[in-house]
Amino acid sequence: MECTNQRTLVGPLLETLLAELGKIRNSRERAGKLFEWLVHPISPKKFFSEIWEKKPAVIRRHNPDYYKGLFSTLEFDRILRDDNVQFGENLDVTSYRNGKRETHNPQGRALPFAVWDFYKNGCSLRMLNPQAFSATLWNVLSILQEQFGSMAGANVYLTPAGTQGFAPHYDDIEAFVVQLEGKKHWRVYNPRTENEVLPQVSSPNFSQNEIGKPILEVVLEAGDLLYFPRGFIHQGDCLPSAHSLHITISSYQRSSWGDLMEKLLPAALQLAVEDDVEFRQGLPLDYLSYMGVQHSEKADVRRKEFIDKVKGLMRKLVDFAPVDAAVDQKAKDFLHDCLPPLLTKEEKSTSVYGAPTRWENGNIRDLKLHFMGKTKIRLLRQGIVRLCSEGEGVILYHTVHNSRVYHKEEPKSFEIESEQADAVEFLIHSYPKFVTVDSLPCDFLDDRVAIAKLLFEEGLIQTKEPLQSS
Amino acid sequence: MECTNQRTLVGPLLETLLAELGKIRNSRERAGKLFEWLVHPISPKKFFSEIWEKKPAVIRRHNPDYYKGLFSTLEFDRILRDDNVQFGENLDVTSYRNGKRETHNPQGRALPFAVWDFYKNGCSLRMLNPQAFSATLWNVLSILQEQFGSMAGANVYLTPAGTQGFAPHYDDIEAFVVQLEGKKHWRVYNPRTENEVLPQVSSPNFSQNEIGKPILEVVLEAGDLLYFPRGFIHQGDCLPSAHSLHITISSYQRSSWGDLMEKLLPAALQLAVEDDVEFRQGLPLDYLSYMGVQHSEKADVRRKEFIDKVKGLMRKLVDFAPVDAAVDQKAKDFLHDCLPPLLTKEEKSTSVYGAPTRWENGNIRDLKLHFMGKTKIRLLRQGIVRLCSEGEGVILYHTVHNSRVYHKEEPKSFEIESEQADAVEFLIHSYPKFVTVDSLPCDFLDDRVAIAKLLFEEGLIQTKEPLQSS
Amino acid sequence: MECTNQRTLVGPLLETLLAELGKIRNSRERAGKLFEWLVHPISPKKFFSEIWEKKPAVIRRHNPDYYKGLFSTLEFDRILRDDNVQFGENLDVTSYRNGKRETHNPQGRALPFAVWDFYKNGCSLRMLNPQAFSATLWNVLSILQEQFGSMAGANVYLTPAGTQGFAPHYDDIEAFVVQLEGKKHWRVYNPRTENEVLPQVSSPNFSQNEIGKPILEVVLEAGDLLYFPRGFIHQGDCLPSAHSLHITISSYQRSSWGDLMEKLLPAALQLAVEDDVEFRQGLPLDYLSYMGVQHSEKADVRRKEFIDKVKGLMRKLVDFAPVDAAVDQKAKDFLHDCLPPLLTKEEKSTSVYGAPTRWENGNIRDLKLHFMGKTKIRLLRQGIVRLCSEGEGVILYHTVHNSRVYHKEEPKSFEIESEQADAVEFLIHSYPKFVTVDSLPCDFLDDRVAIAKLLFEEGLIQTKEPLQSS
Amino acid sequence: MECTNQRTLVGPLLETLLAELGKIRNSRERAGKLFEWLVHPISPKKFFSEIWEKKPAVIRRHNPDYYKGLFSTLEFDRILRDDNVQFGENLDVTSYRNGKRETHNPQGRALPFAVWDFYKNGCSLRMLNPQAFSATLWNVLSILQEQFGSMAGANVYLTPAGTQGFAPHYDDIEAFVVQLEGKKHWRVYNPRTENEVLPQVSSPNFSQNEIGKPILEVVLEAGDLLYFPRGFIHQGDCLPSAHSLHITISSYQRSSWGDLMEKLLPAALQLAVEDDVEFRQGLPLDYLSYMGVQHSEKADVRRKEFIDKVKGLMRKLVDFAPVDAAVDQKAKDFLHDCLPPLLTKEEKSTSVYGAPTRWENGNIRDLKLHFMGKTKIRLLRQGIVRLCSEGEGVILYHTVHNSRVYHKEEPKSFEIESEQADAVEFLIHSYPKFVTVDSLPCDFLDDRVAIAKLLFEEGLIQTKEPLQSS
Repeated sequence: MECTNQRTLVGPLLETLLAELGKIRNSRERAGKLFEWLVHPISPKKFFSEIWEKKPAVIRRHNPDYYKGLFSTLEFDRILRDDNVQFGENLDVTSYRNGKRETHNPQGRALPFAVWDFYKNGCSLRMLNPQAFSATLWNVLSILQEQFGSMAGANVYLTPAGTQGFAPHYDDIEAFVVQLEGKKHWRVYNPRTENEVLPQVSSPNFSQNEIGKPILEVVLEAGDLLYFPRGFIHQGDCLPSAHSLHITISSYQRSSWGDLMEKLLPAALQLAVEDDVEFRQGLPLDYLSYMGVQHSEKADVRRKEFIDKVKGLMRKLVDFAPVDAAVDQKAKDFLHDCLPPLLTKEEKSTSVYGAPTRWENGNIRDLKLHFMGKTKIRLLRQGIVRLCSEGEGVILYHTVHNSRVYHKEEPKSFEIESEQADAVEFLIHSYPKFVTVDSLPCDFLDDRVAIAKLLFEEGLIQTKEPLQSS
Repeated sequence: MECTNQRTLVGPLLETLLAELGKIRNSRERAGKLFEWLVHPISPKKFFSEIWEKKPAVIRRHNPDYYKGLFSTLEFDRILRDDNVQFGENLDVTSYRNGKRETHNPQGRALPFAVWDFYKNGCSLRMLNPQAFSATLWNVLSILQEQFGSMAGANVYLTPAGTQGFAPHYDDIEAFVVQLEGKKHWRVYNPRTENEVLPQVSSPNFSQNEIGKPILEVVLEAGDLLYFPRGFIHQGDCLPSAHSLHITISSYQRSSWGDLMEKLLPAALQLAVEDDVEFRQGLPLDYLSYMGVQHSEKADVRRKEFIDKVKGLMRKLVDFAPVDAAVDQKAKDFLHDCLPPLLTKEEKSTSVYGAPTRWENGNIRDLKLHFMGKTKIRLLRQGIVRLCSEGEGVILYHTVHNSRVYHKEEPKSFEIESEQADAVEFLIHSYPKFVTVDSLPCDFLDDRVAIAKLLFEEGLIQTKEPLQSS
Repeated sequence: MECTNQRTLVGPLLETLLAELGKIRNSRERAGKLFEWLVHPISPKKFFSEIWEKKPAVIRRHNPDYYKGLFSTLEFDRILRDDNVQFGENLDVTSYRNGKRETHNPQGRALPFAVWDFYKNGCSLRMLNPQAFSATLWNVLSILQEQFGSMAGANVYLTPAGTQGFAPHYDDIEAFVVQLEGKKHWRVYNPRTENEVLPQVSSPNFSQNEIGKPILEVVLEAGDLLYFPRGFIHQGDCLPSAHSLHITISSYQRSSWGDLMEKLLPAALQLAVEDDVEFRQGLPLDYLSYMGVQHSEKADVRRKEFIDKVKGLMRKLVDFAPVDAAVDQKAKDFLHDCLPPLLTKEEKSTSVYGAPTRWENGNIRDLKLHFMGKTKIRLLRQGIVRLCSEGEGVILYHTVHNSRVYHKEEPKSFEIESEQADAVEFLIHSYPKFVTVDSLPCDFLDDRVAIAKLLFEEGLIQTKEPLQSS
Repeated sequence: MECTNQRTLVGPLLETLLAELGKIRNSRERAGKLFEWLVHPISPKKFFSEIWEKKPAVIRRHNPDYYKGLFSTLEFDRILRDDNVQFGENLDVTSYRNGKRETHNPQGRALPFAVWDFYKNGCSLRMLNPQAFSATLWNVLSILQEQFGSMAGANVYLTPAGTQGFAPHYDDIEAFVVQLEGKKHWRVYNPRTENEVLPQVSSPNFSQNEIGKPILEVVLEAGDLLYFPRGFIHQGDCLPSAHSLHITISSYQRSSWGDLMEKLLPAALQLAVEDDVEFRQGLPLDYLSYMGVQHSEKADVRRKEFIDKVKGLMRKLVDFAPVDAAVDQKAKDFLHDCLPPLLTKEEKSTSVYGAPTRWENGNIRDLKLHFMGKTKIRLLRQGIVRLCSEGEGVILYHTVHNSRVYHKEEPKSFEIESEQADAVEFLIHSYPKFVTVDSLPCDFLDDRVAIAKLLFEEGLIQTKEPLQSS
């Protein structure tokens, strides 16, 4: 357990921070800086080497404004009024009283009058996927996801004073509990068994006598942070004196070596079967008569032979493992999970979203964009595209037209030719540097301009200077 | 055909008009005024008695700004940049050249760079359901739908100079072609046969030699209006000198007597079968041996008897026709089709959307809204609710949580008790007058307050004065 | 109520009867004779005029062998052994004790050992669709369906002595309870209300105090028959002294005038909408503001006008009623419900099923069947085909490839040309007479032979003499 | 290639053979004998060690009656007349002329008249799944499947003289071409590449110039056998002088080591993830920036580390491989594929199918079967049951209620308790010996009798002597 306890830690206001981050030209670096702010004063390096996936940590800041601007109950109230928040889909009403966890969702739209009535009666409110309603959260999470290389999600929890909304349980994600308003009393417990360390799925609700003694007990105040890895049981309740608003930022769901192997093994087997006749040879005629659970206690020499053969084939499989292709399948899933980037003014003005091509007095102006050899271009952000080989072709996956609502859109992609794939790869590796169209590895200038125009049209690249028209 | 040709017709600017409409307290009256503006200087009364469903009409205004503010190509361009417009779903790229009508939609998001390229190459652009992207169109159409008692839809068409985007055809809706920019040359033709007068479904594309001679030929200019009923064939093309932007506002799809009877007849039959044993008696044992197409030319006295019996039952059916219930089924469908209302500031401040109930410094303020006997309330708008009997219960359907995207949401409704239904009916009939909670026809004050609070919570009513809290 | 009580009624044994029926050349007449046997000594004429759909009737025969050969418990046992009888699908195990009706079906195949165990423990056995397992029942029911012009179904019930298997209830079919073995004590009750006379759907289980006093109470013995119309409540229980085996033959489900009108009304409306513009004209603009349940108590002159208009259109509809086409829809459904015919030796030898065309020593013999002008043909049975107009074409529906399992096969049909339809119609009307190919109403001999061959190939007709090959 | 050419090879007639096989008490041994007959005079041992999966082989018998009774064109004709054979589902009409392969299936039932017309016109007929129509084939294949431990399927091919019905291609099964009537000229070709040796899927149709030169060319005559492994291209055509009827018996589809590993790998991974935290640890934060196809040519030390880590985990996986459970999944699939056994008279009389329990004169006789300690029982056949662990429980899968139509029934199984599983395992291992109920490994006599009765009721075991009742 890691407790940082400093008197006068004062963070920059979020607005200022985001403005400064906007000036960082490398989106990956920007993500790093934002994460640094999140866990300050622990350094990211220290965080990831000593804490991440290992143990809980508390950061006390004695600065209620440290996370100011990220989210607030006022924003919560505004969303209820202005947006179509649906009970059950976007908002859960819950309670945990006398060891009993209940959900109280009515049907239909969650209007403030009814929601606050529940709250007044001691219910907790959990807003799901608040980034769909708050542009700031969208921005912050879309930056953070580049840090994790894994989807960054969030839920907001509003809890009345003197109540608890959820039973003790553990989750399947790394959790960053960001205290925004009021206070909350947290207890964190070790995973109960070796098998529940870094679990792939969340637990059911536990009763108090199943979870042992807490290894960490703390009252979070506004501006504080609590981190705990997946598998650590936790419960939070409000003191009689104060309500609580916090946001839990989550990541690394199903991002383990085992999850990668789920993609890898079928692909490896397919390659092995295609290439190596040993995998295609028939099983022994009689194998059902000595293999299988009903024969598992038989002393039959053929059993050992059979098992050895299988193990031999499994070892052989290692040589067929298409690791990069399996990683690409993970990457593809990640790109589908991603929030779309929230573009800055500068990004808009140098990309298709602010291209000068426009209708004006009945004419289309500036359609002939001069992508010339010397025009400088780069990807809009590092993490927004991914090249994957599929079958014979190469597919370019991207995030720019994803929805703020999780998986509301299908995965976005288009097929490109092999030479174009080289150009995209060049852009990926050059980022954050701008490179000239001329430097793209295509045989002819026309092809270089064509791939640049295509990527521009699809909204994936920006130019160094706003494009001029002829 | 009706042609109004006036030199100096000047309409009010749309913004001013909408502001003035906002002051009209009766939403039905407001709808009437907006329609008056649409067809000015023809009076609505004259329009509906002499033109509607009967013949095309042109209104020339010599005022290019008459419809200004409704929509523009600049708005079109903005939408492409800012919103997730998808080819095929929200935007069609079409052409009609040498008698051949083609659609050129690629896949994916329609970004301006690619869209304007198509346009430059002579393709027409049709934006579907533009009210999902333009708040003004949303507002206008949501008002107009109360005039029609039937869904008001719209498509926007942008056509390059010297081109035509669509083949001649007729539609299944009443069409108001509102010329917004440039000019368009229109030809309108009579329905080809009696059977194609006021048709229930649209036609396929016609070739030029199938449609005869136009009965109306006109060059619409910005500010002009062309109306034609369903069944009238039409085609529009741009002069070489000017592009065209127009919006076609449509209504009255499947809103005929026959469509009502589609709801009515099964319900009437069900009632008749329940109430009258004659409908439940078995068919004659041998009827298959003399009835049916294969026996239709048989001279068999039993045929006449059988047919007379059927006709007698059909006449009897008239007495079982549940006309009001069938109308409610049409109403229910209409409420599902409706755009949600775009609330004014005043409407917000006196409804749940601006209710003082709110979170403040960790407390819920003003939750105990004082709905008292003397509190004055009314429906937010006339057309937003509908009471329907279903089975044993009464269901209140409403439009307030519908989506701007057609049928994106399921029909919205909740069941209410019989006494509450009386109160809602009272509110419906009192509109636009405010009535006191005390005047609601419930036995006890508590019940009156309860139904008022329920309707307020669901966002269906407003109070005369913003609610005060204790 | 009709009770026939005769001392010495002796019927022919079923086998003899079926052999004799096989000699009747007209399938419709054959059906009549079989029905005569079923209700003997009441004449069918009297039965249908005085009893059918009107009141229950008992026929006591004092001849336990009257229905011998139709079904038996031995056959029941054989089916369990030899056929794949599935609990729940083909066999129900039920009990009714102390006013409680229960079903005891396990999963999987119903083998005799387990089934008889249930029986021994006082459970009733209901075999569903026994015609799928018993060829005699298949034969009998496939003949009877021509009598009814409506599907003839059956269930078999085996009840241990001293028990009751089902709660009192009424069904939606005309029921002929044929006592095969042992005895059963029956009580029949009047429909409880006018609305439950000749009902379209079966009732739930009733408790004893919901059903009043029986109007008929009788102990059926082997050879007896009990008939009651749909809507009459009934319950049967075994005396302590004897078990009971009976089969209930059913018909006339959903075969009322109202069921015909369910087909007729949408078709009539479609024709009216196509032909008469009055049905296509728009509803009054404001109709939602005075019609509908919420306005039903309004005194508004427009309400009467609206309702009168609707009623006027309903009366007009009578002139558009396509009665024959609606009957064909009922006929089509009936043909799908039908059991396929069980062909006699003679029918096989003169139809495609016994055609001399065959493989012999590596050659196909007798492929060139000599359908000559003078070849005499007729339909295999009267009720096996039906001509229906659909859209532009004529479809010939038939039953010959139906399954013995209800609706296991899709409806069977093929499209034929207009002239061929005339030939089929001619064959339908000529039945049971054989007619020469020459007499078919086609312009050319070739066409006459072609349609004859087509119908022969599809298994729908037989020739007077077995076909000779060249 | 293996060619056996003997003058006077005379096999036993099939009927005699099957009668003799019926006397063999061990179903596995019976299967071996039947296979011996199939490939006689090659010994099964030699066949499986030298030919199976390795090379084609021809056995010439000079005895046209060797396979007599297995199937014939007369049987083909009878099936068309008596059974509901559907074009496309049960029968294909094909041709291969001038290098073009076509299918000529009409819709509906395949009656002899139309089928023989196609044949006469030079089309080939392929009957699919003929075991659903022929009891002999059902019997033979249900025995053979025990030899293969893999589904034994069959198609029948009837080809007119001088024609060819199929293009050259290879299949995904081991093929035994059994010539029944006439003659057929066969050409067999080597797999074209290493990758097409023992393939998992069948090939498309090849043109003549894609397949090289045949390695085997032979004219099969009635009584001869041609075997070739999957992957060997083949084509057969009829000489001008003779038609051909053959049946192709097939097995070992998807029965390779690779197919087993498809079941094994996900199960192994699941176990590893559950047991070993290394599989649950997160992937490196930045792995997407150096792994994946787009980085595959990068020189980055982390790539090697990553790949080594993956390979290490794959090797670790070997220790988690649940080989027996994976075999059980194959076994489960096989049991679902299996034909049900065709029981002999003796098997029926000593199993539930002939149990003395029966209805007699209104009573159930012999329900109390005396399973006593000394009653001797065994499984009806060796291959009809399989014990599989699933989750917590043990499931007994069996084939006895499968359908003769492939996969028409869902897999059949029921859950049993752990002690019962021991008893079933004991019976499996004791087969073909009869064992006493007393010898079943259960703690109490009651339990021994209970499991014996359960298995008897479900139709899985037989007793040594027909059961006596009390």
